[in-house]
Amino acid sequence: MKETKAYSASSAASPLSTDTIQRRDATERDVEIEILYCGICHSDLHTVRDEWSSFMPTTYPCVPGHEIVGRVVKVGSGVTGFKPGDVVGVGCLVDSDHSCPSCRADVEQFCPAATFTYNSPDKHLGGVTYGGYSESIVVDESFVLRVPSNLDPAGAAPLLCAGITTYSPIRRWGEIKGKKVGVVGLGGLGHMGVKFARAFGAHVVVFTTSPGKTDDAMRVGAHEVIVSTDAEQMQAHAGTFDFILDTVSADHDINAYIHMLGLDGNITLVGAPEKPLPVSAFALLFGRKSVSGSLIGGIAETQEMLDFCGAHGITADVEVIPIQKVNEAYERMLASDVKYRFSIDMASLKAE
Amino acid sequence: MKETKAYSASSAASPLSTDTIQRRDATERDVEIEILYCGICHSDLHTVRDEWSSFMPTTYPCVPGHEIVGRVVKVGSGVTGFKPGDVVGVGCLVDSDHSCPSCRADVEQFCPAATFTYNSPDKHLGGVTYGGYSESIVVDESFVLRVPSNLDPAGAAPLLCAGITTYSPIRRWGEIKGKKVGVVGLGGLGHMGVKFARAFGAHVVVFTTSPGKTDDAMRVGAHEVIVSTDAEQMQAHAGTFDFILDTVSADHDINAYIHMLGLDGNITLVGAPEKPLPVSAFALLFGRKSVSGSLIGGIAETQEMLDFCGAHGITADVEVIPIQKVNEAYERMLASDVKYRFSIDMASLKAE
Repeated sequence: MKETKAYSASSAASPLSTDTIQRRDATERDVEIEILYCGICHSDLHTVRDEWSSFMPTTYPCVPGHEIVGRVVKVGSGVTGFKPGDVVGVGCLVDSDHSCPSCRADVEQFCPAATFTYNSPDKHLGGVTYGGYSESIVVDESFVLRVPSNLDPAGAAPLLCAGITTYSPIRRWGEIKGKKVGVVGLGGLGHMGVKFARAFGAHVVVFTTSPGKTDDAMRVGAHEVIVSTDAEQMQAHAGTFDFILDTVSADHDINAYIHMLGLDGNITLVGAPEKPLPVSAFALLFGRKSVSGSLIGGIAETQEMLDFCGAHGITADVEVIPIQKVNEAYERMLASDVKYRFSIDMASLKAE
Repeated sequence: MKETKAYSASSAASPLSTDTIQRRDATERDVEIEILYCGICHSDLHTVRDEWSSFMPTTYPCVPGHEIVGRVVKVGSGVTGFKPGDVVGVGCLVDSDHSCPSCRADVEQFCPAATFTYNSPDKHLGGVTYGGYSESIVVDESFVLRVPSNLDPAGAAPLLCAGITTYSPIRRWGEIKGKKVGVVGLGGLGHMGVKFARAFGAHVVVFTTSPGKTDDAMRVGAHEVIVSTDAEQMQAHAGTFDFILDTVSADHDINAYIHMLGLDGNITLVGAPEKPLPVSAFALLFGRKSVSGSLIGGIAETQEMLDFCGAHGITADVEVIPIQKVNEAYERMLASDVKYRFSIDMASLKAE
């Protein structure tokens, strides 16, 4: 085992602070990775503060982080896909049972025995897994992704969660080229949704409550912006969308967006409001519309997404911070005061 | 114009009673039909009692009925598809604008200018259209369907609404053969859903609150029955359904059925509960599930459904009544005291 510096929270009420954790020695299937950057995802904050205690209580100390980009420093004897020096990524998953129907269908995120990157039972060391707010991580090679060399590693880190979360439903929708696609919310997830929908050739419209976000929405790739609080603007686009990606986790009126859909239109939720969403059955019947959910993506699809990003030069828009600013970053994330994702430069942890 | 006997309601509080209405003379595109049977649909009752006043207020007198089977007595000079003596059907639609995107896509039910069979502006005579609780009807030939000669006309009548409403979402779901399909509710719609899902080769499971319906569910084609109030039975089937057809219009917990779906499973609503349904976003995200709506079907699809019924010998299970019992039938329908659809023998009206 190897001692590794990390930032952890010791309770739901504690800030994140310097800690030392153990990483296992690489087994023959493992890849040991020196972490370069780790994005900050809203799930990190939910877990640190035990806000999902009802279905996934947090074990402390908690080291969050599942948007990891790093460099391979060592590989086990059986590893065939990676070698020291490779730039790689690790997302929300670090293991699964490799044999259940979900694993066989390449949707390891639904494996009942999936091991999440943090706060998940650790098969090797006991306790729970520790995430990417740390110097290094050791991961089964089948959960390690190749990061295209032309991508900036700081901006590539959020692809591992925000990227795949938005890529997957857009990709699975079907032939989206030339279709009218809406993205609700322009944040960490939303801005990635805009980039992917645009890269796939859709006509992209951002729904936002903030008129001030218009220029920025256009800059990241939107063709149009609708201020969702403006009833007239909304009505002018009613019934015209083929697909809407809803990235908002706060309570909001989903029927207003169902109303925007045309025949056979679909709205897919990737944010998860805590309370059930009241959905009008009439709104679904008239126009044969549907509401779906989507959750990250499988490993093969995540690699496909990274390769697509390499081919199209897509990364997240990030504000790079030293890890010492992580608690402040959480507060700014809650205030939507970031364009659009924080990415922690892990050299700052090494230097401590 | 031609005087025609009918049963109408003169107000939301009035029972249906004998009346005389006008039918137009057949134009060159029209088919004049002597009505043999008319099914009783829940929509008839909602409209007669003005229960949809908020979006489709009822104009009185109101002659309901949109599950019509009859015999052609006369055709206009330009009619090519029908001749006197043919057994034909008329469903929920009698006209549309023939040119909008919905009409061009063969989903005339979503045409903004669709003329519904009753309580819809009548382009020919002014006032509103009158439905099938009458001796005869005159309809544009493009909204007249051919009824296969091997089908009992009394049992064929409900195919025109209950049939197409359930056939359409099952047919559009994809290759359903060998899939596990649930049908929620065993009533006028539900029993047709069971017959269609079975005929398409699915493994069919009925969800019902009434253990007493088990034998009957098996008789109409179910392979299994789940009593939805039995938590143990429900849990045993959790996550195993590919598709669920939800025919229930009363308030009910849709999340319990989302929980029954497996990966990428879909539940389609064909009943329309008045209040919005609380849908758990988490339930949709984990398993990439979806909730859809479906509304009757287009004319071409309705003909396809009738032809399918002819090929598979499918009709509704009906209790044939004289029209003089229609008010009593409404009360029995509200009490779910019918297996599974009333079909009015229109000879009883002629005899008045």
